[in-house]
Amino acid sequence: MKFNNRNVYISEKATIGKNVRIGDNTVIYDNVIIGDNSIICNDCIIGEPINDYYFNSGYENPETILNEGAFIRSHSIIYAGSVFGKNFSTGHRVTIREHSKFGNNCRIGTVSDIQGYVEFGDNCWLHSNVHIGQQSKIGNYVFIYPYVVFTNDPTPPSDICTGPTVGDFSQIAVGTVLLPAAEIGKHCLVGAQSLVGGKYDDYSLVIGNPAKKIKDVRELKSRNADKSHYPWPYNFSRNMPWEEEGFENWKLKNGYEND
Amino acid sequence: MKFNNRNVYISEKATIGKNVRIGDNTVIYDNVIIGDNSIICNDCIIGEPINDYYFNSGYENPETILNEGAFIRSHSIIYAGSVFGKNFSTGHRVTIREHSKFGNNCRIGTVSDIQGYVEFGDNCWLHSNVHIGQQSKIGNYVFIYPYVVFTNDPTPPSDICTGPTVGDFSQIAVGTVLLPAAEIGKHCLVGAQSLVGGKYDDYSLVIGNPAKKIKDVRELKSRNADKSHYPWPYNFSRNMPWEEEGFENWKLKNGYEND
Amino acid sequence: MKFNNRNVYISEKATIGKNVRIGDNTVIYDNVIIGDNSIICNDCIIGEPINDYYFNSGYENPETILNEGAFIRSHSIIYAGSVFGKNFSTGHRVTIREHSKFGNNCRIGTVSDIQGYVEFGDNCWLHSNVHIGQQSKIGNYVFIYPYVVFTNDPTPPSDICTGPTVGDFSQIAVGTVLLPAAEIGKHCLVGAQSLVGGKYDDYSLVIGNPAKKIKDVRELKSRNADKSHYPWPYNFSRNMPWEEEGFENWKLKNGYEND
Repeated sequence: MKFNNRNVYISEKATIGKNVRIGDNTVIYDNVIIGDNSIICNDCIIGEPINDYYFNSGYENPETILNEGAFIRSHSIIYAGSVFGKNFSTGHRVTIREHSKFGNNCRIGTVSDIQGYVEFGDNCWLHSNVHIGQQSKIGNYVFIYPYVVFTNDPTPPSDICTGPTVGDFSQIAVGTVLLPAAEIGKHCLVGAQSLVGGKYDDYSLVIGNPAKKIKDVRELKSRNADKSHYPWPYNFSRNMPWEEEGFENWKLKNGYEND
Repeated sequence: MKFNNRNVYISEKATIGKNVRIGDNTVIYDNVIIGDNSIICNDCIIGEPINDYYFNSGYENPETILNEGAFIRSHSIIYAGSVFGKNFSTGHRVTIREHSKFGNNCRIGTVSDIQGYVEFGDNCWLHSNVHIGQQSKIGNYVFIYPYVVFTNDPTPPSDICTGPTVGDFSQIAVGTVLLPAAEIGKHCLVGAQSLVGGKYDDYSLVIGNPAKKIKDVRELKSRNADKSHYPWPYNFSRNMPWEEEGFENWKLKNGYEND
Repeated sequence: MKFNNRNVYISEKATIGKNVRIGDNTVIYDNVIIGDNSIICNDCIIGEPINDYYFNSGYENPETILNEGAFIRSHSIIYAGSVFGKNFSTGHRVTIREHSKFGNNCRIGTVSDIQGYVEFGDNCWLHSNVHIGQQSKIGNYVFIYPYVVFTNDPTPPSDICTGPTVGDFSQIAVGTVLLPAAEIGKHCLVGAQSLVGGKYDDYSLVIGNPAKKIKDVRELKSRNADKSHYPWPYNFSRNMPWEEEGFENWKLKNGYEND
């Protein structure tokens, strides 16, 4: 049904792995490397040349590496010069600028906009329409929900660029803005539509405009149980690497003894 | 000018009605049914296969039904497995996932993202860049403005999925977040940039972060008149079915005697 | 690498200047005029017919003028009937509706949505995902950051349409909503995630939901200096016309003696 090889353009300088499917109307530019068992859907642009291309006749497209198992949904644009770990997947119409670095098993939702010069750990899930400014640094197992914006300029416009950092396992809920240089610890929950500057300890529940730490997430009562849902890895395992053995066992073997 | 039949792909298993125009670079997949007098503009994907397609060799695309008079603007993606009433229209780059059900005369604005497993009544108008999470349930004549988000997970991440419900004639203004399981009655007005959880009676004016009921919408003075603009159907009729005879008469014949 | 003339459609009634590059899969419709030294990237639609086209057999596409040095990135859609000054540039997937008027050197970021019937001065920079409603009026050197929304209907839905106005050099930070008919003076800074109605004097710092004037921007201490960063033109010049001689000298020759 899909993948009829209609109007596909693949540069001779691209390297395509085994068992890779490429959708109609998709373009793959120079020096893109796509790992085995990947799917690139229709109308995508992979290895989009960075700005220099238009103005520098000696331009060479920087290397773009999508490791094995990539799944890029239609109408997405990935600039040249980024590296993606295994099983990277996107929704539709995602834009990812140059010098972005993603670990394994990351997912980026529809229309999300990654501005480049950012770093993500493993297993980060971004929902639809997330905006990540340059110089953001995000740990492992961080989930970011729709319409969240990471900013980086404290006195716009200026030449300062200091993005937020977010620790492992933290959750940033819908519509929240992280101000420049905000530091969110590990296992935090930042509530919906918050405006968050400053530094927050591990396990903080952060809410409001302007945001404050309200309590420790471990004190939050869950709706359907007597105990807190947080730290969430003990209570959520769908598609997580601890799905089979549970977080309690998994963490001991994977460097998360203290989580 | 448009509709030059360039690079169009229509599955042999699709059913196209009379007087249907299909734009260049558009793809229509298996088991899509498009009603008479419809327009599908350029670069659209209609009947996008759901996730199973990529992993299940026996995959059969579920039926997608666009009833007569559909108008899908360019770069939109509609997944297989949804049903759309008459005169359904979209802006550009709309994404609509599987198991979405729309009544007649609905409009979805540019870049809006319908996550699937949702239900809309008749004559709902979504403006640009609205995000509707799964399990949302929306009545008739509901208008939703830009950057509104409907959420569904009270303790992210979890396996709970309980979307908001919105009653007939309610208005959800710009940038508002409806929290999981929020219940908005009929004829409500939810103000801009509100964060709304809980249950609100018919005719509530709801505003703030966190939101509260401020007053009855019928007590709101209009800028240009002594009386309230709400319930709005008495004061706005452009493109509404009561445009010619007025809401007062129309409602009696159409089951809205009490509105 | 790009610009291979694959699947490009250019109307015979379009006028293309010298040294213009047009990307693959792009469509240029009737009565579009593109100035010299412009770049239109892949998968764009320039001169998209307005609504009349679909319903009026005698439709004539209104003139669309992109002056010299335009740079339209891929997947953007520009409707017929707008005028763009020199060096107009966009990110990806921008939508610009009819009757939009832009001065010179304006930039519109990825996914931004300009609803038409708007007016921008010179050197306005809109970041990603900005939504500008009809009847907005924006001065010169105005910067607007991601997820800002300009609205125009005080009692939705109604037939009233009164957009905001923003004076020269003002900055509207991330996630802010300008309510209908809001008036922002010159050299203002509107803080992130604010909800802003009413009228604000020149040099106001405006913050909050609902927003208030907090102080004069000239009283704001900068993080890295003893003096205020504002008025910002004295402290930021990258890609500004005063980059070489400084704002102090430039303003005297360019009609900004009082800024």
